[in-house]
Amino acid sequence: MSVFKPTVLWMTGLSGAGKSTIAYSLEKKLQSEGILCEVLDGDVLRNGVNAGLGFSETDRKENIRRTAETAKILVQNNFVVICSLITPTNDLRDSARKILGDKFKLIHISTPFEICKKRDVKGLYKKAENGEIPHFTGVSALFDIPNKSDFEINAQNESETVSVDKLYAFLRELSK
Amino acid sequence: MSVFKPTVLWMTGLSGAGKSTIAYSLEKKLQSEGILCEVLDGDVLRNGVNAGLGFSETDRKENIRRTAETAKILVQNNFVVICSLITPTNDLRDSARKILGDKFKLIHISTPFEICKKRDVKGLYKKAENGEIPHFTGVSALFDIPNKSDFEINAQNESETVSVDKLYAFLRELSK
Repeated sequence: MSVFKPTVLWMTGLSGAGKSTIAYSLEKKLQSEGILCEVLDGDVLRNGVNAGLGFSETDRKENIRRTAETAKILVQNNFVVICSLITPTNDLRDSARKILGDKFKLIHISTPFEICKKRDVKGLYKKAENGEIPHFTGVSALFDIPNKSDFEINAQNESETVSVDKLYAFLRELSK
Repeated sequence: MSVFKPTVLWMTGLSGAGKSTIAYSLEKKLQSEGILCEVLDGDVLRNGVNAGLGFSETDRKENIRRTAETAKILVQNNFVVICSLITPTNDLRDSARKILGDKFKLIHISTPFEICKKRDVKGLYKKAENGEIPHFTGVSALFDIPNKSDFEINAQNESETVSVDKLYAFLRELSK
């Protein structure tokens, strides 16, 4: 049985901040210890339960809602769920928190805009600046600095391993 | 670890056929043996991941799609998933099968219309006949007899315990 309390680590941050990299790495570590863990990755879910949704305000809201409802089923089954989605506004984060209650922990992956833009892992910032992607967070759509995150990872200044270890320790602390 | 192969038992049948009763009873039995198991109940999901969807053909299709995608996440995590949804047409069943592949097993809960109507556990048949519920399966919407179910439960002629035991044996057989 898991030594961790069922929890939803909801990672918010800009595109390219490192959310999914950290999420999958933490998942691997937890699963290797026999802990029930699942990453719900925004990009992946858009081909699954969230297919058909775009990036308008309404669609983002529905995207977050369905993701939170899916996370709820998993956390009710004793999973540690790691949600990796930009979740750009405090309203969206609050709507997920409302669905998940005290299981919800907001993790801010706070890599700054300039760094994310410079990395541009998926080439999306370039496209967005060329006007090829509407509603792109940080370029043509808002990203609120979280007003109440439960934990912050500054992935800019530390290795993936250090970030993962910090989140692991955070989870352990929650479970005391 | 589960002795059962991760499987999606997709229960199709009329409203009042006994799908959810059997589903929850089987879930209880499996969970008591430490097996990861989750019921995805159509009525419950309509307040969760499927909120906002009605009973038109388009909405039913989307309802089945989201449910199948949710089941997929669970079955990929070694769950036995029991989906309890009317799923009235062969097209809808096939669309779920397409998403879930060979993990998908169609279970027909074949309680006849006249019996379901007579029971009318939720008072829905009466309402439907009074025209208060549009698109009600069996009354104002079609129910196809499944053309390729993997297992059939005739809940009309047997107790809940017997039905559950049969499905348990079916699962065990699948896992050999």
